[in-house]
Amino acid sequence: MGAAILSDLLTQVLIPATAVVGIAFALMQWVLVSKVRLSPSEGDAAGTGKNGYSEYLIDEEEGLNDHNVVVKCAEIQSAISEGATSFLLTEYQYVGIFMAIFAALIFLFLGSVEGFSTESQPCTYSKDKTCKPALANAIFSTLSFLLGGTTSVVSGFLGMKIATYANARTTLEARKGVGKAFITAFRSGAVMGFLLAANGLLVLFLSINLFKLYYGDDWEGLFEAITGYGLGGSSMALFGRVGGGIYTKAADVGADLVGKVERNIPEDDPRNPAVIADNVGDNVGDIAGMGSDLFGSYAESSCAALVVASISSFGINHDLTAMLYPLLISSMGIIVCLITTLFATDFFEIKAVKEIEPSLKKQLIISTVLMTAGIAVVSWVALPSTFTIFNFGAQKSVKNWELFFCVAIGLWAGLVIGFVTEYYTSNAYSPVQDVADSCRTGAATNVIFGLALGYKSVIIPIFAIAVSIFVSFSLAAMYGIAVAALGMLSTIATGLAIDAYGPISDNAGGIAEMAGMSHRIRERTDALDAAGNTTAAIGKGFAIGSAALVSLALFGAFVSRAAIPSVDVLTPKVFIGLLVGAMLPYWFSAMTMKSVGSAALKMVEEVRRQFNTIPGLMEGTARPDYTNCVKISTDASIREMIPPGALVMLTPLVVGTLFGVETLSGVLAGSLVSGVQIAISASNTGGAWDNAKKYIEAGASEHARSLGPKGSDPHKAAVIGDTIGDPLKDTSGPSLNILIKLMAVESLVFAPFFATHGGLLFKLF
Amino acid sequence: MGAAILSDLLTQVLIPATAVVGIAFALMQWVLVSKVRLSPSEGDAAGTGKNGYSEYLIDEEEGLNDHNVVVKCAEIQSAISEGATSFLLTEYQYVGIFMAIFAALIFLFLGSVEGFSTESQPCTYSKDKTCKPALANAIFSTLSFLLGGTTSVVSGFLGMKIATYANARTTLEARKGVGKAFITAFRSGAVMGFLLAANGLLVLFLSINLFKLYYGDDWEGLFEAITGYGLGGSSMALFGRVGGGIYTKAADVGADLVGKVERNIPEDDPRNPAVIADNVGDNVGDIAGMGSDLFGSYAESSCAALVVASISSFGINHDLTAMLYPLLISSMGIIVCLITTLFATDFFEIKAVKEIEPSLKKQLIISTVLMTAGIAVVSWVALPSTFTIFNFGAQKSVKNWELFFCVAIGLWAGLVIGFVTEYYTSNAYSPVQDVADSCRTGAATNVIFGLALGYKSVIIPIFAIAVSIFVSFSLAAMYGIAVAALGMLSTIATGLAIDAYGPISDNAGGIAEMAGMSHRIRERTDALDAAGNTTAAIGKGFAIGSAALVSLALFGAFVSRAAIPSVDVLTPKVFIGLLVGAMLPYWFSAMTMKSVGSAALKMVEEVRRQFNTIPGLMEGTARPDYTNCVKISTDASIREMIPPGALVMLTPLVVGTLFGVETLSGVLAGSLVSGVQIAISASNTGGAWDNAKKYIEAGASEHARSLGPKGSDPHKAAVIGDTIGDPLKDTSGPSLNILIKLMAVESLVFAPFFATHGGLLFKLF
Repeated sequence: MGAAILSDLLTQVLIPATAVVGIAFALMQWVLVSKVRLSPSEGDAAGTGKNGYSEYLIDEEEGLNDHNVVVKCAEIQSAISEGATSFLLTEYQYVGIFMAIFAALIFLFLGSVEGFSTESQPCTYSKDKTCKPALANAIFSTLSFLLGGTTSVVSGFLGMKIATYANARTTLEARKGVGKAFITAFRSGAVMGFLLAANGLLVLFLSINLFKLYYGDDWEGLFEAITGYGLGGSSMALFGRVGGGIYTKAADVGADLVGKVERNIPEDDPRNPAVIADNVGDNVGDIAGMGSDLFGSYAESSCAALVVASISSFGINHDLTAMLYPLLISSMGIIVCLITTLFATDFFEIKAVKEIEPSLKKQLIISTVLMTAGIAVVSWVALPSTFTIFNFGAQKSVKNWELFFCVAIGLWAGLVIGFVTEYYTSNAYSPVQDVADSCRTGAATNVIFGLALGYKSVIIPIFAIAVSIFVSFSLAAMYGIAVAALGMLSTIATGLAIDAYGPISDNAGGIAEMAGMSHRIRERTDALDAAGNTTAAIGKGFAIGSAALVSLALFGAFVSRAAIPSVDVLTPKVFIGLLVGAMLPYWFSAMTMKSVGSAALKMVEEVRRQFNTIPGLMEGTARPDYTNCVKISTDASIREMIPPGALVMLTPLVVGTLFGVETLSGVLAGSLVSGVQIAISASNTGGAWDNAKKYIEAGASEHARSLGPKGSDPHKAAVIGDTIGDPLKDTSGPSLNILIKLMAVESLVFAPFFATHGGLLFKLF
Repeated sequence: MGAAILSDLLTQVLIPATAVVGIAFALMQWVLVSKVRLSPSEGDAAGTGKNGYSEYLIDEEEGLNDHNVVVKCAEIQSAISEGATSFLLTEYQYVGIFMAIFAALIFLFLGSVEGFSTESQPCTYSKDKTCKPALANAIFSTLSFLLGGTTSVVSGFLGMKIATYANARTTLEARKGVGKAFITAFRSGAVMGFLLAANGLLVLFLSINLFKLYYGDDWEGLFEAITGYGLGGSSMALFGRVGGGIYTKAADVGADLVGKVERNIPEDDPRNPAVIADNVGDNVGDIAGMGSDLFGSYAESSCAALVVASISSFGINHDLTAMLYPLLISSMGIIVCLITTLFATDFFEIKAVKEIEPSLKKQLIISTVLMTAGIAVVSWVALPSTFTIFNFGAQKSVKNWELFFCVAIGLWAGLVIGFVTEYYTSNAYSPVQDVADSCRTGAATNVIFGLALGYKSVIIPIFAIAVSIFVSFSLAAMYGIAVAALGMLSTIATGLAIDAYGPISDNAGGIAEMAGMSHRIRERTDALDAAGNTTAAIGKGFAIGSAALVSLALFGAFVSRAAIPSVDVLTPKVFIGLLVGAMLPYWFSAMTMKSVGSAALKMVEEVRRQFNTIPGLMEGTARPDYTNCVKISTDASIREMIPPGALVMLTPLVVGTLFGVETLSGVLAGSLVSGVQIAISASNTGGAWDNAKKYIEAGASEHARSLGPKGSDPHKAAVIGDTIGDPLKDTSGPSLNILIKLMAVESLVFAPFFATHGGLLFKLF
C-alpha cells in the first residue's frame, strides 16, 4: 500500500490556501472591472433632463466623454440590479421556508432509523467497529444540508450581483472597442467562477474539519453526514434553475411576442415594457441558476467520492491526504484556471470580432491540457501507489495511475461534449446554417430541422459519457465515476467564467439599446453575445455531462448504502421503476414548459395592455411601466416553481417509503438515462435556433444575406424558432440536470431510512 | 396439474376455423362496400369533357344522379390507387433485396453456432434430452422469417388496396348522409382488420403444424425457430412505417407549405400538384404502415409467449392446447371483434355528426368488455388449473386464473391508454382547446403548449403499462408479460378497423374536394376525418403500449436464451448499454425527421415550380403534373428509409457480436424505456396540433369562433403546429414502436449466436 508523498499537514494547509488564492484572484478581477467608472468623473450634469423622456429614448451616443450615456447606463443597470435582487430575495424567502421544512424532514427521517437513540451503534460497513449513533447522523446531515443550501444561495446571489455590476461597464467599454468590452465581460465571469469554486471548496473543507471534531475516527459516519451538503446545494439549485428559468423565459418570450412580432420594434427596445424584466431574467436564470447548478454538481461529486472513499482503504486506514483527494483535485483546478484566465485577459488581446469565439474555445483547451498535468501531479503525490476501493460489498484493488485515468477521462469527455455542443449550436458550422436555411419554407420546417438537430446532437456526447463511465467504472468502480465527474468539473472556474460571460454580454447589448447608443456599439455587443450563446450551450453541455456522471456515482453510493445486492432490470420492481423513472423528465418538462407558456401569455397581455393604454409609448414620448412586468415574472416564477420542485423532491421520498429501494433504484436509473438525452437535445435545439436567427440577422455571408434582412419571412420564421427554443434551452432542459442529480443525492441521504423502513406497500401486501 | 378441458384435436380445429370465419367476414364486408358503384349505372357520359379542365375543377355536385361526379371520383381513386400500388411495389423490391440478404445472415449466424453440424445436440434448457441440430434452427428460423415478412407485406398491401377501393365510395355515400358514409368507411376498415388478424393467425398456425412435421417432440427447437416469424413481420413493418411515413409526410408537408400557407388554397385543392401524392401517402403510410406494424406486434407477442411456453410445463409435457393458448386468445378475439363490428354497422345507425366519435369509442368499450369474458372462457377451457412457467432458470407455479388476470390487465391497460390518448388529442376536451387558445399569441406558444401537452400525455399511459407489467410479471413472469401484450392486441381487428377508418375518411374528403363536390359533402367527410384523427392517435397508443409489453417479453426471452444470470444496471457493461440504448430513439428520430424535412423541401420546390411555370394552374384552367410529385415522394422515401432501417437492424448485431449479451440487454432496456416515452409524446403532440387546427376551422363553439375563421392569425399559427406535428405523429413517433420491438426480437433470434460467439471486443482485450 504505502503512504502518499504529500503529508496530511500539508494537505490541510494547501486546500484552504488555494481556496483563499481563488477568492483573492476573484476580488482582484472585481477591482479591475470596477475601474470602469459608472459615475461621470466630473460633477457636470450636461444633458440630463433636457427635454424629458423623448430625449432619453432616442438620444445617440456622442463619444467617450458623453456623461449622459454613462448616467443612463448606470440608471438602467440599477433598475436591472434592483429587479434581480428583489426577485432573488423573494425567491429565497420561499426557498427558506422549504429548507426549514426539508431540514426537519431529514432530521425526523434519519433520526427515526434507530428510534432517536443516542447510543453508539455498530458501523454499517465495518460491522466490528462502533460508530456514532444514527441520531448524530440525522443532526449533522441536517446541518450540512443547511450549509450546502446556504453556500448555493450565496453563490447564486454573488454571481447575480457581479453580473449586474458588470453589464453596464461592458457596454461602456464597448465604446472603446470589442477587445476592451470582451475583457470586462470575461473578467466579471471569472469573478463569479473563482468565487464559486473557491467558496464551495472552502466551506466543504471547513465542514469536514468541524464535523471531525465530533466524529473523530468514525469517518464512515462523518462522510455520510457530509452528503447532506450536496443535497442542500442541489435543492437550492433546483429552485434557482426552475424559478429563474421560468422568470427569464416568461419575460423573454413575452417581450419578443409583442415587441418583435407584433410591434416590429427591435430586441431590448426601451419602449417595450417587458425589457427590464427580460434583462433581469438573464441574471437570475442564466447566472444565478447556472451558478447554483454547477455548485450543486461540484458539491455532489465531491460528496459521492468522499462517501465511497470513507469505506475504502483511504477511510479504513484513516489516510487523510488520500481521503481528501477530491478536494485536492479541486484545489489544483483553481490554480490551473487561474493561469488559464490570464491567457484571455493578459497574455493575449482580442482585436477583432472573429477572435472572440476562438479565444473562448482556447480557454477550454488550455485549461484541459494544463489540468491533465495537474491531475497527474495530484494523483502522484496524494495517493498511495496501490489502495482498495469499495465496490458493492467487495474491495477492489486500484493503482494511483488508474485513478489518474478516471479523472482525466472525465475531464476530456467534458471537452469533447463542449466541442460537439459548439459544432451543433454555433452558426459557423453547417448544422445551424441548415436550420437557418430551412426558414426559407417557414417556421414549420425550421422547427422540424431544429428538433432533428437537437436529437442528433445527443449521439456523440452520449458516447463520450458512456466511454468515461465504462473506463472509470472498470478501473475504480463507483469511486472512479465520482472522480470522473470531478474531473469534468475540475475546470469549473473557467467553465463558469465563459458561461457567465454570455448573459453579461447579452445584458450589455440590452443596455446599449436602451441607452440609445449607436449602432456600432450594438454591433459589438451583439458579436460578444453571439459567442455567448455558444458558450452558454457549452456550459449546459458540461452541466449535463457532469450531472450524468455525478448521478451515477450517487446512485452507486445509494445502492451500497441501502445494501441492495443487485439492480436487476428483469425483476418487476426494478423494471417498473425504470419505466416510470424514464417518464419523470417528461412530466417535469411538461410542467416547466407549460409554466413558461402561461407566464409568457400573462406577460403578453400586460405588454399589449401597456401599448394600447399608455399614449405615446410607441412613439417613445412616454415611459412604460417596467415594474409591473417585473412583478408578473416574479409572481409567475415563484408560483410555478413549486409543482415541478415538489415532483422532484417528493418522488424519491414517496417511492422509497412506499415501494422500497429496488424500485427507487429503477427510478434513478430510468430518469438518469432518459433525462440526460432530453436535457442535451433541448439545450442544443434552443441554442441552434437562437444562433440561426442571429445568423440571418448578422448577414455575414452570401447565404445568410439571401435569408435576411431582419423582418424578412425567413427571419420571422427564425424568430418563432428562437422563441420556442427559449423555454427548452433555459428552463426545462437545464433543470433536468438537477432532476437527475437531486433525486440521486436525496436517495443517498435518505438511504439509511429507506433501508430500514422503506417499501411499506410491499410489506403490507 | 391436470389437463385442459379443451381437447388437442378440438384446438387444432377451432383455431383455423375462426381464422377462416374472420376471412369470410372480411370478404362479406368487402362485398357490402363494393355495392357502392363507382361506374355510372347507365352508359351515359353526360357532362364529360364539356369544356375541359375548367369545368372539371369548379363543377358543383348536382345530386345523386350526377354521373359526372361518379366518373370523377373513380378517376381520382384510380390515380391514388395507382400511385400507392406503384410506390409499394417499388418499396417491396428494395425490401425484397433486404429480406434476401438478411435471410442469408440469419442462416449463416445461426448455422455457425455449432459450425453447421448436422448432428443432433443436447437441448438448451432440458440438458438431458436431445434436440435437433443448430443447423435446423438456422434453416427453419430463416424460413419463418421469410414467412413472417411475406405475411406482413401481404397484410400491408391488402390494407392499402382496400382503403383505396373504399375512399371514393365513402365520398359518394357522403352524398346520402354522414351515417352511410361512416358505415362504408368503417366496413372497409373492418375488411382490413379482420383480414390481417385472421391471416396472421392462420399463417402462424400452419407454420407451427408444418414445422412440427420435422421437429416432432422437440418443441424447444420448434418454437425457437418460430420466433423468426415475428422478426420477419417486424422488419417489414420497419420499412413500411419509415418508408410510408416519410412518403406521406413529405407530400403532406410539401403540399401544405405551398398550398395552404403561400397560395392560400384549401387542403386537397386539385390545383395543388402534390395533392395526389398526399392522398397516396395516407394509404401507404397510415394504412399499409400501420397494418404491418400491428401485425408485427401480434406476431411477436405470440412468438414471445410461445417460446417461453415451450420451456414451461406446457412444452415439457407436450400439452398442445395449453401451448396454443396465445393462438386461442387471438381466435376468441376474432369472434369478439366480429360481434363488436355489428354494433357499429348493423345494430345501430349513425344519424348525426356528433354520434361518430362516441360510436367509435363504444367499439373499444364493447370489444374490451366482451373480450374479458372471452379471455375467461379460454383460460378456463384451454389451461390446466395449475402449471409451471419458466422464470429465468426456475419454474414458477401459476394458476389458470392468474393467467386470465395477465391477459385481462393488458386488455384493459389498452383501453386506458386509448381513452387517455383520446382525452389529449380530441378537441372535445380542454387540453387541445388550450393549445388552440395559445395560437392567439402565435405559432411559438402553440408549439410550446403542444410539446408540453405531449410530454404530459405520457404520464398515465406509462403508469398503465407499469401496472400491467408489475401484475403480469409478478403472476406469471415473462409469459405473463407476453400474454398481457396479446391481451392488448386481442381486439386488434376492431382496433385496426377504427384506425384504418381515419385515413379512408381523410381520403374521402380529399376526393370530395378534388371532384369539386359541394361544401356540405366536404363538411360531412371533415367530420368523419376529425373523429379519424383521434382514432388514429388511439391506434398509435395501442401500437406503442403493446410494443412496450411485447419488447419486454421478447427481452425476457432473449435473456433466458442467452443465459444471462442477471441484468444488473450497476455493472459497467450493462449501464453503458442502457445509456446508449436510451439514446437510440433520438438518433432514429433525428434521421426520420430530417428525412421528412428534406423530402418536404424538395416537394415544396417542385410545387412552387409548377405554380410558377404552368400557366393557368392557379386559375384552374390547367392541370398540374401530379406524377412528378408522386415520383419525388417515392424516391425520397425509398432513399431515406435505408439509414434509419440500417440503424435499427444493425445495432443488435453489432452490439451483440462486439460487446456481448450484457451490453445488448442494457441497450434493449434503455431503448425500450426511452423510446416508449418519445413515441407516445410525439404522436399525441402531433394529434393535438392537428385537432387544434380542426377545432379552429370547425368553429363549433364561441371560443373556437373567436380564434377563427380559416386564414386568421391564430389559424395560421395552428397550421404551423399541424405541419410540425406531421412527421412527429406519422413518421418518427410510430416508427419508434418498431425500433424497440424489432431490436428485441432480433436479439432473441440471434441469441444462440451471441451466447456462443458474442462479445468479441471484450474477449480480445
